[in-house]
Amino acid sequence: MSSEIGKALKISVFGQSHGRAIGVVIDGLPAGEPVDEEELYAFMSRRRPGTSRLSTQRSEADRPEIISGLVNGVTAGSPLCAVIENTDTRSGDYAALTDLPRPSHADLTARARYGKAVDMRGSGHFSGRLTAPLCIAGGIAKQLLARKGIFIGAHLLSVEKEADDPFPPEPTPELFAAVAAKPLPVVSDGAGERMARAVERARAEADSVGGVIECAAVGLPAGLGSPMFDGIENRLAAALFGVPAVKGVEFGAGFAAAKMRGSVHNDPYIIENGEIKTAKNDAGGIIGGITTGMPLVVKCAMKPTPSIGRPQKTVSVSKMEPAELEIKGRHDPCVAIRAVPVIEAVTAFTILDILLEEQGHGND
Amino acid sequence: MSSEIGKALKISVFGQSHGRAIGVVIDGLPAGEPVDEEELYAFMSRRRPGTSRLSTQRSEADRPEIISGLVNGVTAGSPLCAVIENTDTRSGDYAALTDLPRPSHADLTARARYGKAVDMRGSGHFSGRLTAPLCIAGGIAKQLLARKGIFIGAHLLSVEKEADDPFPPEPTPELFAAVAAKPLPVVSDGAGERMARAVERARAEADSVGGVIECAAVGLPAGLGSPMFDGIENRLAAALFGVPAVKGVEFGAGFAAAKMRGSVHNDPYIIENGEIKTAKNDAGGIIGGITTGMPLVVKCAMKPTPSIGRPQKTVSVSKMEPAELEIKGRHDPCVAIRAVPVIEAVTAFTILDILLEEQGHGND
Amino acid sequence: MSSEIGKALKISVFGQSHGRAIGVVIDGLPAGEPVDEEELYAFMSRRRPGTSRLSTQRSEADRPEIISGLVNGVTAGSPLCAVIENTDTRSGDYAALTDLPRPSHADLTARARYGKAVDMRGSGHFSGRLTAPLCIAGGIAKQLLARKGIFIGAHLLSVEKEADDPFPPEPTPELFAAVAAKPLPVVSDGAGERMARAVERARAEADSVGGVIECAAVGLPAGLGSPMFDGIENRLAAALFGVPAVKGVEFGAGFAAAKMRGSVHNDPYIIENGEIKTAKNDAGGIIGGITTGMPLVVKCAMKPTPSIGRPQKTVSVSKMEPAELEIKGRHDPCVAIRAVPVIEAVTAFTILDILLEEQGHGND
Amino acid sequence: MSSEIGKALKISVFGQSHGRAIGVVIDGLPAGEPVDEEELYAFMSRRRPGTSRLSTQRSEADRPEIISGLVNGVTAGSPLCAVIENTDTRSGDYAALTDLPRPSHADLTARARYGKAVDMRGSGHFSGRLTAPLCIAGGIAKQLLARKGIFIGAHLLSVEKEADDPFPPEPTPELFAAVAAKPLPVVSDGAGERMARAVERARAEADSVGGVIECAAVGLPAGLGSPMFDGIENRLAAALFGVPAVKGVEFGAGFAAAKMRGSVHNDPYIIENGEIKTAKNDAGGIIGGITTGMPLVVKCAMKPTPSIGRPQKTVSVSKMEPAELEIKGRHDPCVAIRAVPVIEAVTAFTILDILLEEQGHGND
Repeated sequence: MSSEIGKALKISVFGQSHGRAIGVVIDGLPAGEPVDEEELYAFMSRRRPGTSRLSTQRSEADRPEIISGLVNGVTAGSPLCAVIENTDTRSGDYAALTDLPRPSHADLTARARYGKAVDMRGSGHFSGRLTAPLCIAGGIAKQLLARKGIFIGAHLLSVEKEADDPFPPEPTPELFAAVAAKPLPVVSDGAGERMARAVERARAEADSVGGVIECAAVGLPAGLGSPMFDGIENRLAAALFGVPAVKGVEFGAGFAAAKMRGSVHNDPYIIENGEIKTAKNDAGGIIGGITTGMPLVVKCAMKPTPSIGRPQKTVSVSKMEPAELEIKGRHDPCVAIRAVPVIEAVTAFTILDILLEEQGHGND
Repeated sequence: MSSEIGKALKISVFGQSHGRAIGVVIDGLPAGEPVDEEELYAFMSRRRPGTSRLSTQRSEADRPEIISGLVNGVTAGSPLCAVIENTDTRSGDYAALTDLPRPSHADLTARARYGKAVDMRGSGHFSGRLTAPLCIAGGIAKQLLARKGIFIGAHLLSVEKEADDPFPPEPTPELFAAVAAKPLPVVSDGAGERMARAVERARAEADSVGGVIECAAVGLPAGLGSPMFDGIENRLAAALFGVPAVKGVEFGAGFAAAKMRGSVHNDPYIIENGEIKTAKNDAGGIIGGITTGMPLVVKCAMKPTPSIGRPQKTVSVSKMEPAELEIKGRHDPCVAIRAVPVIEAVTAFTILDILLEEQGHGND
Repeated sequence: MSSEIGKALKISVFGQSHGRAIGVVIDGLPAGEPVDEEELYAFMSRRRPGTSRLSTQRSEADRPEIISGLVNGVTAGSPLCAVIENTDTRSGDYAALTDLPRPSHADLTARARYGKAVDMRGSGHFSGRLTAPLCIAGGIAKQLLARKGIFIGAHLLSVEKEADDPFPPEPTPELFAAVAAKPLPVVSDGAGERMARAVERARAEADSVGGVIECAAVGLPAGLGSPMFDGIENRLAAALFGVPAVKGVEFGAGFAAAKMRGSVHNDPYIIENGEIKTAKNDAGGIIGGITTGMPLVVKCAMKPTPSIGRPQKTVSVSKMEPAELEIKGRHDPCVAIRAVPVIEAVTAFTILDILLEEQGHGND
Repeated sequence: MSSEIGKALKISVFGQSHGRAIGVVIDGLPAGEPVDEEELYAFMSRRRPGTSRLSTQRSEADRPEIISGLVNGVTAGSPLCAVIENTDTRSGDYAALTDLPRPSHADLTARARYGKAVDMRGSGHFSGRLTAPLCIAGGIAKQLLARKGIFIGAHLLSVEKEADDPFPPEPTPELFAAVAAKPLPVVSDGAGERMARAVERARAEADSVGGVIECAAVGLPAGLGSPMFDGIENRLAAALFGVPAVKGVEFGAGFAAAKMRGSVHNDPYIIENGEIKTAKNDAGGIIGGITTGMPLVVKCAMKPTPSIGRPQKTVSVSKMEPAELEIKGRHDPCVAIRAVPVIEAVTAFTILDILLEEQGHGND
């Protein structure tokens, strides 16, 4: 496996869903940066299961312990390691599944890749639970970025067929905070209610739904990133596809751009308050891999939770014959909901990585 | 800049559109592999400008010279360098543009990133011309992969609002070859005609159109790739966003999955000819970052060519005042067309990289 | 900082000497490999302080807890994280030192690099204590390598002016084990006694001594490694200079080769038992960055422990005036002794990394 | 193979000794930096064969052509590719050698690694000729570093048993220039004469000699580098072992430190002109992987040229029986001589890489 990413800021994620602990090492954080653990915990709570009827009922404190890299709440230059103990792990739920691979789960591919020794209890290292360490890294990155005037927010752009309003052309940190504080992170409360009902319907039918997450970053300097393989898009996509269930990533108009004429898609340059901007932002803040200075806008397609309660067709690996599978246990009917802060987090640590790489290691 | 990518197989692209030459170094090719230069040249001809009325009239031989790494047509283990001379470079066309950044081109972001010294003649290193070296690397990779029974093909899934049929669930190398041989690389000839008309219309109106490219790889073993940051999706997306004009990348159902229920999206396991397969392939051949053994399917959204003939709003950087810009010169009205083999190429060398990484360096 | 290394096998070390814990994440271990924790602990005990009068009296259990990556003693494919709690940390000893940088310690360079926030209590992340996580990674790598018939051993080739016999041309695993079991890891017991006296003399004089460690690996296949920047020597040197106090690394005859004639240095090829070997091994088992199949031999120069009891000249950073410093506390008079298993460990995980990279990820 | 190195500044070397061309791609050079091609060529001439009786008589222009990355003599931000045509390649000299591997040459290891397809004509990619591209990269890096007040010089510290004076504690750019201008790059002319005689004697006896190169860098800021695996020593050693014939690398006192007491080896801090310095520099300008601000001093052990004229014992690979080999052709009796600028070059581009990584990409 390679659960490491980053150049100037290296993230190394470890742990399995039902092992002793999960966690992350963050190597390359500038020294002298305060880390507010309460703020971090508050951020992490946004992805925590059990906070609403719309997500899994498994309850976990998920409070990370920072065991290195921090002295009196300030980064010390050395790698920061944070650990979350696994406490609520009922492996029994998964025991019967080893012979019957769950459709659209990694059960079978993990076996093909790692052989029989792979730990797939609770989906092991493939579990959505491993997004908690991503949130640690991203939550810390968000604190550092905020001090540089860079803010990142995300919301549910759609759930199944219910759509939220997109972020406005120039979203504010206040909007990001307001969205994050809602039961469902949306711009339009009406959309949130419709989404909640769609999720409820799916749950009631022992089914699940997908969704799209829109994430924006404001305050980025123009000129960040590089062409070809080291562009903002390359780096973000490489990281975002690390979030389980992401099946598509687009920037700005994205796939909609493919249906447009150039005369419609091109963003005309204008001057506003003595600065060059674009009149609109179909580029999503990136041209040629490099930031324009306009808000960075990225959208991620999240597939519906593969664990559903209704019977599914699968095969018995040992008998090589058709079988039926009914997945028990607690599962989010819509992983997109809890993934909102995860997408924010991954965007945050990737941007901080690029910033540190291009502007130097940033110690005071 | 970083125009390098790859782990076991490292690709390093160099050159500017109007410099002396462009090219690529490929480090890590197994030794003892024949490279058929005629086949390579035939592949590269698919992206060559000037072959149809639907693309730019600039004529170039674009025949690469392999100056290292090959002895008597066989790879020698040492890095392969291939160079293409730039011959037809009329920089005059671009001279007036330095003060008036072209909307949705990298003119201004490149300046923000590299300062005044950046070479943006003909879009410099950001030019679509730099996809020729990508095709060299990918064309060679395709030859090696074919010997392993792995074949890669692509087609125009849509142009503006005109849609081609998607690839069938299990596309064959023969289909890939047939599609590639057409004037427009499509599955349905009727779709190709509609697309050609859409492109013609745009050209006649001094405008451009976007499109979507679908690319598939067949013959991949199950169990290739890794979870989290080293998955097939991460690696392919990181490479594919290096192709100019790509604004979105999705796998399998992609963004459509976000609108689905789990009961619809999940791919049931079945047994066929004694092997475990999935009854359909909304996963695009990848679960948990790892290949399932089903065809890998990736789609790329290509934005419309930003260079359009009609007048556009921009600003004068020197005077900091609004300005109007009319782009002269020869430009593809639809970059998606010529990008089809490029997407194939990037997919090919990325897959070969992952194969070599996971299976060893592969010398005989 | 970057305390990460490796390509196929990635090692990420974290922790400060007087923080809560130190540890390591090992990403890329093949799945299905048993890890004998008792054997690992026995290996780690070889570097433990407090086991002899010749090293520091600080006592630590240093028993690592493996919190991920292992299920029932077998690697699960996912990253392995091991943590060692810091228990015996008397920071008071170091409190006075912040203004008076210790000569040849990283106090001042760490400050120049990271600013005031850097944690240098007990030398922080720069401490020799951070070699414990290296031993975890290397100890596990040694177990995997042994199963492939590859064995690694090391001994004190010299301490101050006292020299041990070098390893014989083809050392055996039994010799490695015998050397490791001695109070001082040496080939010749007489040499060990002379070295012990040299260390005692230095300690009695509140001084310290340097030494050279010779490390050998047997059982390596021929053809491992690559020319230029990915050779065995490049990779090993890059890792070995990560061990505190290493100031020189040489392979085979090393610096002695520089005094030789080619006719003396060249290793003639011979045939032995139907295999091509070299009559001697001044190459240290590596030519052109690639293994010959003969034992790999690397030597590391270890500087004398910079912490010495006698008064030293330094400066007061706050007053910018000359000052005298007397270092209190417990310090090894010869870091080379405890570094012997560390050099073995770093050699081991680097070789395993190269093996996995060149031969594939190695899951069953 | 991996002939690539670097993080912020990536060097990718290509070519075989008797192929069409050799060269290098340098990715990551800041934009806007003048490159003086005459100065570069003058630097490269220092390693050119045929300039003295002490090196091989093969004559080559070795003038690099820069085919990308430079516009009007100024870096453009895009990767710089430079190519040197191979013109004087008499492969006949080597034809008979394929069955009789030359002792201490890579003939046999290359075969083990790459199989029969490897191109070993003139040692192929393993040839000392491949140090010319390293000099291109290093020569350009030296020009950029000089503008930052950083200067790098090297000399022959010893040849066989003849020793030059070491560099003084604080060598100047003027000394570096004076040494480089001599027939043999030495500090003491008397030493140069003795060395020349030693080389002549070896040549007359159809033999060769090794040597040690000392390289220093002055003007480096304090605080450059990182602990553990990203230290200056790790990075330099990883690059320097890429130079053929290097068998040992040491910093400061290096292996001599292993014979010292701490009280002798430790560098006391002093104040000089309001700055903290060390009274001497046994650390070689690096403590804890990080620069002290004192001159960086690194020494490389170069083995004697393996190609010697006198008969040598080897084996016939096809017959698997002992054989005798007499190497014809033109060979340096002392590769250390021509390697002096190569060591400078590799040191230069590695330092520039670290600077760019830690201080940002450095575009104006």
